[in-house]
Amino acid sequence: MYPVITISREFGSGGHTIGEKVAKNLDIPFYDGEIVNRVALESGYAKELIEEQGETTSSANKWFDISAASAMYFQSPQDEIFLAQRKVILEAAEAGPCVIVGRCSDYILRNAEIPCLNVLIHSDLEHRITRILQRYGEISNVDVKKRIRKKDKQRRTYYRYYTDQHWGVYSNYDLALDSGSLGEDTCIHLICELAKNMNK
Amino acid sequence: MYPVITISREFGSGGHTIGEKVAKNLDIPFYDGEIVNRVALESGYAKELIEEQGETTSSANKWFDISAASAMYFQSPQDEIFLAQRKVILEAAEAGPCVIVGRCSDYILRNAEIPCLNVLIHSDLEHRITRILQRYGEISNVDVKKRIRKKDKQRRTYYRYYTDQHWGVYSNYDLALDSGSLGEDTCIHLICELAKNMNK
Repeated sequence: MYPVITISREFGSGGHTIGEKVAKNLDIPFYDGEIVNRVALESGYAKELIEEQGETTSSANKWFDISAASAMYFQSPQDEIFLAQRKVILEAAEAGPCVIVGRCSDYILRNAEIPCLNVLIHSDLEHRITRILQRYGEISNVDVKKRIRKKDKQRRTYYRYYTDQHWGVYSNYDLALDSGSLGEDTCIHLICELAKNMNK
Repeated sequence: MYPVITISREFGSGGHTIGEKVAKNLDIPFYDGEIVNRVALESGYAKELIEEQGETTSSANKWFDISAASAMYFQSPQDEIFLAQRKVILEAAEAGPCVIVGRCSDYILRNAEIPCLNVLIHSDLEHRITRILQRYGEISNVDVKKRIRKKDKQRRTYYRYYTDQHWGVYSNYDLALDSGSLGEDTCIHLICELAKNMNK
């Protein structure tokens, strides 16, 4: 059986596309945006809110939530979304091999006794800018850099808060790949090779 | 042509063995201890001193060297060894594809305009202890842990001092592999695959 493949990625590194193609190649389910739909059903929160709060957080917003939560002994919407998301990820992984992108999935599955392959996809700024410009089109170079910095920071803060460990530390991953220097196809090939190898 | 493959490794992760087998598989030179001989010829320092100071440093020793060096405007033996080692690494890489283990080689070759594949090999403590006990035999579990911590700390301090960047940050590597979870043979296979791919 293939492992559950978790993909952590820098914004613009192509982690989503790589994960999607790996899933297609291995013929297993792919979870990225799909998780949002399931979390909406699970939690009752609107998809828009889950998209906004399900993986990223501004620290200001976060600290407000924390203080409110501790003061009033109730879970913030973001905490509830995290817990619903955690449940959806565990259920998806327990159902069988799949690819899950982001959302602290490497951490959530660490004790689940399910064979996992934890992958980190990263890339230098230049490659990421090129990729984002290709994908989203009309946006200036300065805006792209700002957007990359903001998105990465939000995801790191979210990960740090919910896992109590730092995002991107090599020891959290079986495999870390530079999609800029190696190229997307090579990354897909290597991940599939490993998954097939674990399937033996 | 194959790239120059640099291998950064945690102590006990099997990076030396993996690098050696990759070199054998690709039929290219392998540099680890061999660098010591060349640096001895280059610098005139004794092999024992190069082995001791050519990759590791105790911070106390280092700070003494630095203050002595700045105060007296001359290079410390460790600085001289680093410079000789740097020269040997650049010459080896310019001579053609090879595998070089440690010694800041990823950093030294960063601007050399030679195709490089920078690899990081790491592993959890348990696998590293097992590997070291198998390799060195008669040594207690407690001593092994101490030795791992000390060796890693010395190498990181050395790397930090001479490169002004932190060791083990994912963005410095094209590929980072957990030799404990993936196994030595898989790591060798993946690195060779990549090198062959870059050869096309």
